[in-house]
Amino acid sequence: MQIAILSFFYYFTPMFKKRERIFEVEEGNFLAPKFDKDGLMPVTTTDYKSGEVLMQGYMNEEALKKTIETKEAYYWSRSRNALWQKGKTSGFVQKVMDFRIDDDQDSLWMSVDIGDGASCHVGYKSCFYRSIPLGPIKDAQEVKLEFKEKKKKFDPEEVYKGQTNPTKL
Amino acid sequence: MQIAILSFFYYFTPMFKKRERIFEVEEGNFLAPKFDKDGLMPVTTTDYKSGEVLMQGYMNEEALKKTIETKEAYYWSRSRNALWQKGKTSGFVQKVMDFRIDDDQDSLWMSVDIGDGASCHVGYKSCFYRSIPLGPIKDAQEVKLEFKEKKKKFDPEEVYKGQTNPTKL
Repeated sequence: MQIAILSFFYYFTPMFKKRERIFEVEEGNFLAPKFDKDGLMPVTTTDYKSGEVLMQGYMNEEALKKTIETKEAYYWSRSRNALWQKGKTSGFVQKVMDFRIDDDQDSLWMSVDIGDGASCHVGYKSCFYRSIPLGPIKDAQEVKLEFKEKKKKFDPEEVYKGQTNPTKL
Repeated sequence: MQIAILSFFYYFTPMFKKRERIFEVEEGNFLAPKFDKDGLMPVTTTDYKSGEVLMQGYMNEEALKKTIETKEAYYWSRSRNALWQKGKTSGFVQKVMDFRIDDDQDSLWMSVDIGDGASCHVGYKSCFYRSIPLGPIKDAQEVKLEFKEKKKKFDPEEVYKGQTNPTKL
């Protein structure tokens, strides 16, 4: 019973500062993050040199803490349901150069150094390697994407040998 | 009864191409977006000149279609539960210069032109106007943020007079 009560408090006590006033959250000096009902927060990761968006992932409280403390990017993998250090398998660790939080503190932006590496499990530098054409849609079933990266930075079959593809239908 | 059946099919028939094979989703040429269980997809919006992240929002199928067709950013507002053209109140419309989708087609990146405008309802240019300090955390209740933007681009009390603040505790 005691363990149950302790677990309850541990689960519902946020590690970071409690959110008490909207003004404080938006204009204040304290980190008071808001995670969603699954305990996650979206994070956008950009290349600190080029500014391009490399990937968009999620962090839970633990991933946020580990990223701050180690200055390397940790995410929560929704497909594997586990804490995940980016680059642990591929070697393409992301060094955090700047870490921002938004106005209502429910979204993160990390500017990272990946050297000459890549951030996409498909093998491209950025996960956003395809562009959506703009303008009137004739047939929504036939919107053709345009490849903006033509050459992969690594061979995913070699790097992620034997691992399950995180992409779901 | 007929209306109920028609509504059912309308609701469950995706407007865009159906996702049938992972290889096609990741390496193919067709837009086959995946919305979450609430029908939403995260979108990161960056300034096409500076590369800085301006905001992170969500799109539903309709917002995605309107953004593609009008070349101006539409989002789904979770706080107002409504389609929302960015800049309708403030005048700071976002012109889409490049629109990307990620490897598994469940996340979007828009590169936009806002001229000399702003994208944050608090009045700053970017919603990410505060930085999280990196390094060992002594006391998680006292992590102090650093302001990276010092001066607001507009006065939110004037621009959004009488409107509810979208930030929730």
